[in-house]
Amino acid sequence: MQESLAVAQRSMGDPDKTFPLFPPIVDGCPETSTDEVQYPLEITYDYEQVSHQMFAQESLPGLERWSPLLPPLLDGLSMGEGGTPLVPTPRLANWAGLDGEVFIKDESQNPTWSHKDRLNLCTVSAAIHAGAPGVVVASSGNHGASAAAYAARAGIPCIMLASAESPKAIISFALGYGAAVLSAPSTERWAAVRLIRERFGYQPVSNQTTFHTGHPFGTEGYKTIAWELYRQLGNRIPGTVFVPTGYGEMLMGVAKGFVEMRLLGIVDSIPKIVSCEPSARGPLADAIRRGRPVSTVDANPTDAYAIATAIGGFRGRAALEWTDGYPVLVSDEEMQEARVATGKSGIWQELSSASSVAGLRRAVLDGEPVAGPVVCISTSSGFKDRDLGTHEVPFVTADWTGIQSALAETYGVSI
Amino acid sequence: MQESLAVAQRSMGDPDKTFPLFPPIVDGCPETSTDEVQYPLEITYDYEQVSHQMFAQESLPGLERWSPLLPPLLDGLSMGEGGTPLVPTPRLANWAGLDGEVFIKDESQNPTWSHKDRLNLCTVSAAIHAGAPGVVVASSGNHGASAAAYAARAGIPCIMLASAESPKAIISFALGYGAAVLSAPSTERWAAVRLIRERFGYQPVSNQTTFHTGHPFGTEGYKTIAWELYRQLGNRIPGTVFVPTGYGEMLMGVAKGFVEMRLLGIVDSIPKIVSCEPSARGPLADAIRRGRPVSTVDANPTDAYAIATAIGGFRGRAALEWTDGYPVLVSDEEMQEARVATGKSGIWQELSSASSVAGLRRAVLDGEPVAGPVVCISTSSGFKDRDLGTHEVPFVTADWTGIQSALAETYGVSI
Repeated sequence: MQESLAVAQRSMGDPDKTFPLFPPIVDGCPETSTDEVQYPLEITYDYEQVSHQMFAQESLPGLERWSPLLPPLLDGLSMGEGGTPLVPTPRLANWAGLDGEVFIKDESQNPTWSHKDRLNLCTVSAAIHAGAPGVVVASSGNHGASAAAYAARAGIPCIMLASAESPKAIISFALGYGAAVLSAPSTERWAAVRLIRERFGYQPVSNQTTFHTGHPFGTEGYKTIAWELYRQLGNRIPGTVFVPTGYGEMLMGVAKGFVEMRLLGIVDSIPKIVSCEPSARGPLADAIRRGRPVSTVDANPTDAYAIATAIGGFRGRAALEWTDGYPVLVSDEEMQEARVATGKSGIWQELSSASSVAGLRRAVLDGEPVAGPVVCISTSSGFKDRDLGTHEVPFVTADWTGIQSALAETYGVSI
Repeated sequence: MQESLAVAQRSMGDPDKTFPLFPPIVDGCPETSTDEVQYPLEITYDYEQVSHQMFAQESLPGLERWSPLLPPLLDGLSMGEGGTPLVPTPRLANWAGLDGEVFIKDESQNPTWSHKDRLNLCTVSAAIHAGAPGVVVASSGNHGASAAAYAARAGIPCIMLASAESPKAIISFALGYGAAVLSAPSTERWAAVRLIRERFGYQPVSNQTTFHTGHPFGTEGYKTIAWELYRQLGNRIPGTVFVPTGYGEMLMGVAKGFVEMRLLGIVDSIPKIVSCEPSARGPLADAIRRGRPVSTVDANPTDAYAIATAIGGFRGRAALEWTDGYPVLVSDEEMQEARVATGKSGIWQELSSASSVAGLRRAVLDGEPVAGPVVCISTSSGFKDRDLGTHEVPFVTADWTGIQSALAETYGVSI
């Protein structure tokens, strides 16, 4: 594994303010944050030492191959995250009304079957390097289970604060890695995390501030998506990348990956990054509309629980500014339609994940700029949804008439 | 995509008997099969035309990169199957009592999250090349959902015959790809498949004979696991490969991949392949013990439903003979222990999938030959098990005493 070239934590509120690389600052920038807005930190690198050869390698699993531009990784922690397929989906282009190439970057093909593994490889490495005795995470989904997996592999305990609304499958999932899973009222989960952190020194790998700032190291892991895309497209960059967006960590990570490639002279231009939020909420779209750094919105109901946040953060705002991108909002119904359409291309997604494909169609309908090649990021599988296992199907015997009528009536298949 | 060098279907009952490549023979060898044993068919190739360069490529997703030694694939059908990570698991070596390298080949990182995608890329391609209007499959699990995904992508319907015992999550899974899922009594599923096949010309992608013979094209897809392992180990072959075993299709595919590499002079020797069956059943172990080509056993209960077959097939027998391998039997309890141990290395498996890690420990305990490096194939994720979503966890508030006691009492974590 090559050495990390990370040098410092830097405030996103004021790039002149930097802090030592360790310990990770998990409460947002201590100097620029105010009660009205908390600014995250990001990692800076010694870019002059980066070998351009790194961008010529194949897009194989295992993020350690990108070590120079990631925070210091724990040796042996990687378990083949990244290197996920880029799947051509011409039928989806047609469905979205786009004349051009559309690909799905299938992040469900990661060690715990979501993009979150790219983040948690970095956060759990940071916890070990910082000497934390364990990690603690408030999560209803992929984020917590992924943290549990990497903590288990690193040999430290993980405490996960789930909520009563967490899908029951997710509880089994996190327990499968030996995590200590507790259920807490939504309103008290973050206070519980804080207690565990303060009394026991566990490192939080989920957010700790009113507006989302998150762990400074985690977002860096998502940069690898940009670098893989460049290689998988045959040393081309996409024109537009649609990203399922909750707190905007992946949004910023992908954007930063492209920004770094431009900085290093690997590419001349970078794609527009498009945030795809549930229209029931959408704090990033709201912040853009109001011209504010961050925003909060009403916590209206949506089934897209993995990206259902009413609280924004500055990372998402930065990503759209850096890439001249834009926000789109999609309804639950649009996500459901996108989920069905994507299933017909062989990819079965979680509803939240389908926001990117829904966002593509919405952007085309709205006349937004959608340069190709288009990449929609798929974050996770349909196994993570609350409707899992609720579907009933017709019962038949080996009787031709019964089979025929069941197929015709339930599925419209005439046979 | 390079051309396939496949030339014929060949009987595994008598290698001198060959048949044209199309149509796929889905009822076992028509010449050598008897009422006592049905022999499968396999595919032969024009090996003299194979470029050795194929074995020097990186282990990237997308099986089309191995086209010369696979049956003809449908252009555009691939969605990044294969190229799955090989994860070092030193802690599992210790757990199994082995002094040497142990790796997990994580097949859950495939388009539908199991090894079955390697098979169904080949079977659905065959269905299209043979002009079938659709595919039909009897399956309670990964196999059927994977067939549904590839059929959807190919633009043909898939009818899946599930059973009342199928996990409910699997029904949602197959429906996610637009499959027409029917539930039928276990005893009538195969007759229903036959009706759909005979009356409508759908191609069956699951077995059609009393003893398992399966689709001749599907098993070929598993050969790619062997070729990837060689590259991922730095042009080394494993010493021993442990394989979760139901009907033995993957077992034979992996074995054949290594046999072909030896035939072509890429390697001098090949690993022992070890079949890992539930001790409640284990028709392959039974056949070996009795010195018979195939065997049936009592359908005793086991939770390892994905490999719970009472009916053997000749493919598994052939794999063990070709590689001088051996069978092991593991109890549900051993699989459960292996599942927990593997989770602590960051990999959460379906119970059936944990049979390979359980098999490793069993083989070490029994004093069987276990040369390194050892590879245990993990087939699928814990999301596929019947106990999914049945786990309860303690409810806490942001109260230190309550959190402390919940952690101590439920998880033994003292904080």
